[in-house]
Amino acid sequence: MLANLPAVPDLHNNGLPSSDTNASLPISSVVNLDRGDTVLLESYWRKMSDECTVVIKGWEFLSYASDLRSVCWFMTPELRHAIKRLHALVGNAETHDKHIVIGNGSTQLFQASLFALSSSSSSSLSPADIPMNVVAAAPYYSGYPVETDIVRSSLYRWSGDALKYDKNEAYIEIVTSPNNPDGSIRRPMVNNKCGGEGKLIHDLAYYWPHYTPITHKANHDLMLFTFSKCTGHSGSRIGWAIVKDIEIAKKMTTFIVMNSIGVSKESQTRAAKIMKVVCDSYENFRFGSKESVELFFEYSRRLLKERWEKLREVIKQSDDFILPKFQRAYCNFTNESSETYPAFAWLMCEKDQDCTSYLDKEMKVLARSGNRFGCDPRYARINMLTRGDDFDEFLKRLSDIKDLSCQM
Amino acid sequence: MLANLPAVPDLHNNGLPSSDTNASLPISSVVNLDRGDTVLLESYWRKMSDECTVVIKGWEFLSYASDLRSVCWFMTPELRHAIKRLHALVGNAETHDKHIVIGNGSTQLFQASLFALSSSSSSSLSPADIPMNVVAAAPYYSGYPVETDIVRSSLYRWSGDALKYDKNEAYIEIVTSPNNPDGSIRRPMVNNKCGGEGKLIHDLAYYWPHYTPITHKANHDLMLFTFSKCTGHSGSRIGWAIVKDIEIAKKMTTFIVMNSIGVSKESQTRAAKIMKVVCDSYENFRFGSKESVELFFEYSRRLLKERWEKLREVIKQSDDFILPKFQRAYCNFTNESSETYPAFAWLMCEKDQDCTSYLDKEMKVLARSGNRFGCDPRYARINMLTRGDDFDEFLKRLSDIKDLSCQM
Repeated sequence: MLANLPAVPDLHNNGLPSSDTNASLPISSVVNLDRGDTVLLESYWRKMSDECTVVIKGWEFLSYASDLRSVCWFMTPELRHAIKRLHALVGNAETHDKHIVIGNGSTQLFQASLFALSSSSSSSLSPADIPMNVVAAAPYYSGYPVETDIVRSSLYRWSGDALKYDKNEAYIEIVTSPNNPDGSIRRPMVNNKCGGEGKLIHDLAYYWPHYTPITHKANHDLMLFTFSKCTGHSGSRIGWAIVKDIEIAKKMTTFIVMNSIGVSKESQTRAAKIMKVVCDSYENFRFGSKESVELFFEYSRRLLKERWEKLREVIKQSDDFILPKFQRAYCNFTNESSETYPAFAWLMCEKDQDCTSYLDKEMKVLARSGNRFGCDPRYARINMLTRGDDFDEFLKRLSDIKDLSCQM
Repeated sequence: MLANLPAVPDLHNNGLPSSDTNASLPISSVVNLDRGDTVLLESYWRKMSDECTVVIKGWEFLSYASDLRSVCWFMTPELRHAIKRLHALVGNAETHDKHIVIGNGSTQLFQASLFALSSSSSSSLSPADIPMNVVAAAPYYSGYPVETDIVRSSLYRWSGDALKYDKNEAYIEIVTSPNNPDGSIRRPMVNNKCGGEGKLIHDLAYYWPHYTPITHKANHDLMLFTFSKCTGHSGSRIGWAIVKDIEIAKKMTTFIVMNSIGVSKESQTRAAKIMKVVCDSYENFRFGSKESVELFFEYSRRLLKERWEKLREVIKQSDDFILPKFQRAYCNFTNESSETYPAFAWLMCEKDQDCTSYLDKEMKVLARSGNRFGCDPRYARINMLTRGDDFDEFLKRLSDIKDLSCQM
């Protein structure tokens, strides 16, 4: 049965991500840019270490529950308040008159969304025994197919590329914007002529000002965010959904309860603290604080900008790869026209039809193949938030390959 | 589709547990003993507050990964070590030459187990398109049916009472010992004549010395434990599986990754700390420490013993209810013959065929009906780990009902 699931190479590797061995091996070691780790942002949190420190006493958080008056009764009021405050600060999503549901990462909330939307379907075109089709426009996030189909639910099933969807059956389309892997800004893509009734999940994991201009306040019926990609704290496993329909919010809550009876109180407390520190720092800045600490989104944006500029410079000098271009846009958060600096680089290989194979063979660099994203293997996804050593080594090997080609 | 799921009253109540309103309402308020909260144990952790304090800096835990050499690569080495040390102290489970897999509560690990065991099935009697039957002997934990069937997986399906299972198809039997709801010690129950190939999940959530004598070191192929029922820290969402077969451990890890990309690092750190404090206190005691702090399992056992004795005393004086009896057994941990004091009281009602209805109508006490456990509604499950106020009020109302009957 597992053989029927989409190929998940790093999980077929016994659930182990390809090992990151740079710490202890010689210069010929593998540089792993396949994963989505966010440790680039650690340097900011080291500066802010004291302000963000969380102290948890032994007797705290024994109960499953937090706020029994709330739909999402395992969510702490502090985290709920912090999430709303953060979105109000950044202006990237409307939370007024919406319900917040939290999960163990937006990964779990994605699956809660599938459950909620497929068990709410009233379409006469999809009898109870036909799973709802789940689609996303290629290149789509490599996790969607495997997460959708892992237990072969009868409620929903992965049905591939939204651009090619033409069934006269109900569907759920995931709109990821900015998109993972290519950083593009997305809209719903399913052709309206297909006839089936469609529901949307907006995965806005990267809709933050360090990655992309905040051009408007997103206001969709179901929006997913993750702490991992906002502040970089991937180990905390905190995600949240902003949901318009209370019945959907209740069903998502039910799923999270059935799946894991809620979310770590320790992580909730920490996420609330860190979000508070971010919001306070901007508030203090706007009130003319004399402190010179660089603000989070500006700091992170600067780091990403430096990396993208270095990468583009190296790529420009070689014929081997092409990077996507992005349009500038006005950012309502920074109040200026801005570039886009996505969390991943979507590399197209000119030298080989199989980009990851070329990267591995020529440079011992691991990346995630385009075919994992429903796309051509000529593409590969590179993590731009990886450790500094890894990124610098990657640039060096790209340059070396170019130098080698020139000498031939 | 949700209508096809087993009735889950407190979740049909919009995902909200029945509200706990004792804090602010008059004496006629509802006493909620339906849930499985563990706040009785909070008093111990208040005494140990300083020793158990955890401090987390802002820059910690950004990465998804912890130990890439381990099968369960998102598990911290500290937690793994603490789990093994705790089991070595208590002697309730063999961990040597076994794999540890952690999850967001044993709830998530239960589902990871179903996935791992059903996707490993090599039985020629169960072609890929027949879901594996999941059974447990009634009365079984009310969560199993709903958690098994929530997304109507094609890999497995809930098939009811293990005692009645007679299909010639592969099955998974959950053996919960001590059992939830009735505290009984359990063995596999499926009749071997049924012909199907069986796999076992041993849910040992309550196999700790505060609830039950530790008569032997459990050594099954797949054992589940939860931090919630061990120390009472339900809000942390930490569970662990002790797994013999590495392929099963890898598949369970894959499930947790697909489901939530791991487990909160904050919770792992806290669980490791608290387990360490427990183990250190016993070690210090054995080495003749002069400190007078009562040890955790002894303290908790004393609290449960007091509650059970009070409850039995009140029940004895009325004709309304019957409680189960348990045999004494020698506990290898305390080195003495001991009683059993389960986390739940399995009440049988003599006065009414519907126990929860009787409790609600006569006493405004909420309990969980026997029919949620695949049993007669004459039974109801009462939480023995609930807040002190709730429990005392329950005893009072039981006594009042008895007094009222006597006067009639």
